[in-house]
Amino acid sequence: MVAMRTVHDLETPSILIDLDLMERNIAAMQKRCDDLGIQFRPHIKTHKIPDIARRQLEAGAVGIACQKVSEAEVFADAGIKDIQIPYNIVGAAKTRRLAQLAKRGDVTVTVDNQAVLDGIATAMQDAGATISVMVELVSLNKRTGTTPEEALALAKRIIKVDNLRFAGLMIYPSDAAIRPRLQKTLKLLKDSEIEVATVSGGGSGAILESHLIPELTEMRVGTYIFWDWGSVAGGMTTFEECAMRIRATVVSANEPNRVILDGGSKSIHSETVDGCFGYITEYPDARIYKVNEEHGYVDFSACDHQPQVGDILHIIPVHTCVVTNLHNQLYGLRGDWIEEVWDVAARGLVW
Amino acid sequence: MVAMRTVHDLETPSILIDLDLMERNIAAMQKRCDDLGIQFRPHIKTHKIPDIARRQLEAGAVGIACQKVSEAEVFADAGIKDIQIPYNIVGAAKTRRLAQLAKRGDVTVTVDNQAVLDGIATAMQDAGATISVMVELVSLNKRTGTTPEEALALAKRIIKVDNLRFAGLMIYPSDAAIRPRLQKTLKLLKDSEIEVATVSGGGSGAILESHLIPELTEMRVGTYIFWDWGSVAGGMTTFEECAMRIRATVVSANEPNRVILDGGSKSIHSETVDGCFGYITEYPDARIYKVNEEHGYVDFSACDHQPQVGDILHIIPVHTCVVTNLHNQLYGLRGDWIEEVWDVAARGLVW
Repeated sequence: MVAMRTVHDLETPSILIDLDLMERNIAAMQKRCDDLGIQFRPHIKTHKIPDIARRQLEAGAVGIACQKVSEAEVFADAGIKDIQIPYNIVGAAKTRRLAQLAKRGDVTVTVDNQAVLDGIATAMQDAGATISVMVELVSLNKRTGTTPEEALALAKRIIKVDNLRFAGLMIYPSDAAIRPRLQKTLKLLKDSEIEVATVSGGGSGAILESHLIPELTEMRVGTYIFWDWGSVAGGMTTFEECAMRIRATVVSANEPNRVILDGGSKSIHSETVDGCFGYITEYPDARIYKVNEEHGYVDFSACDHQPQVGDILHIIPVHTCVVTNLHNQLYGLRGDWIEEVWDVAARGLVW
Repeated sequence: MVAMRTVHDLETPSILIDLDLMERNIAAMQKRCDDLGIQFRPHIKTHKIPDIARRQLEAGAVGIACQKVSEAEVFADAGIKDIQIPYNIVGAAKTRRLAQLAKRGDVTVTVDNQAVLDGIATAMQDAGATISVMVELVSLNKRTGTTPEEALALAKRIIKVDNLRFAGLMIYPSDAAIRPRLQKTLKLLKDSEIEVATVSGGGSGAILESHLIPELTEMRVGTYIFWDWGSVAGGMTTFEECAMRIRATVVSANEPNRVILDGGSKSIHSETVDGCFGYITEYPDARIYKVNEEHGYVDFSACDHQPQVGDILHIIPVHTCVVTNLHNQLYGLRGDWIEEVWDVAARGLVW
């Protein structure tokens, strides 16, 4: 076997990361937060790779955010100390693991209801561990999070438990429209003489509105490191800043104006923008209009020519975070040269 | 740590396989093919686990089908000899690996165009390997596959190459409506005195129509081993035969008639039936109407009660094959007891 040296040695469908673009994205988001005078905390769900988190921290990030305890353990094993899990951790086994994690570093978790808080408190007391706890304030998309009044009640309860530190408020996404609710909550807390060390906002779209919420002390953003078509469609970035490509091969071309690629729902996932499953850089007018597990169907009727069997195409995915999660490795490229082969260390885990 | 013994020891979101149901599904599909007098070749894309393939072979399957060379290698490493890859394998590195695989067992591949065939022929000649080659006939869904006339031309070309054996015709999906095209192709081949050893049909829906195509000599089906909501919606099976459940936990319940689960697009995927991302067995009228990466949004307004934070729910996924691909392990249960912890050995691979 010849050693793998350049992108041309890579099989398909593989995931390419343009290191120059990734580094530019890391620097740009850090600068944006520096200019706002707030801390930046990258969310690692987008890459799940400790070496990339290390680069984000070296650029100035205060710590990382993880979405699961299992992810946090992988990054703690890699030596990262300041880890926030902006998620309700539920269940005795998970909170036990969370307590062990809290003994190893500076771990912050969030809650939006009393049952979750009580579970975490019990686990910390049982383990003799201490953890920082933020309260999640419900945002306009009404996923998780609670009301200002309940946030105050939760904060008071956190303060009463020796093994818990009240760390502040968390919001996702922290769109500008949420500010009145945030201000109301901060006033309730202030009236009760409860100090709020951190107001943590998040979201790749919300970062564009962060200057409209001066109460924020930090932002969590994940997708920015690679960006994707969804981010472009959402007005957050341009295709020129998208650092991830799926390298795919044309494997069949027997119908007029249509070819089949070797990438489908198991490699480019099933999310769409305008009914398309990915943006082909070589053919901006082509439409990936359907995917099976290992097949992508592409319509070239709007293009003046189309590729042949064996041709290699490059796809900017709709959503990088779910694509990373499908693959065992990402390949970091400097130009055509393969500079990094990263294991997606924190993918496929349960807890 | 207490040893993991029953389902109650499992974290969420984890993937449970009911072994009794799986074994019943294995036996039922084998019997269906036995009764039709055709060979059965399970497609392992649904589970990607060699131990499960072994059970399918022990039940009477003639061999397996894989969708990728990398999958086939994993199963060859596990000692399985008769492997079909019903896919156009394109690219010099992939066909080199295919040639090495062909040296280890009885490997069959398919082609639907001359460029793919030439690439395989060259790789086999270079490696001194021999491989069986089927020609794919285009079906009504027009994914891959070619016309009767081109199928004849490809068969003639295969026969002329020493390192290739013409093995017959492949169709996916082999719906009954394809029979006239199949018959036309078989007549063209017969008129040219080309023997057709195998006519391989495939598809979880198409198996229901296999008796209408007596020309078939074998069927490839994958999803049947677990079934899923998509199969139920397609009239192929019932919920009672679905062997896979995603075990998930309610992590938030702050809105009326709505709770948030810890399963989303990274654990239950993004495919839908009737706008729902999964079927909750405990609440048949609940609707998982939205997913983020680690959150599932469930509407309980049609239910007379709803679960609380900490409750465990079980989801029959829309499409088992893409769910398997998201996880590192599947858990095989006998009742509540964990009898198997399988690594999803062939997931996340590139080539």
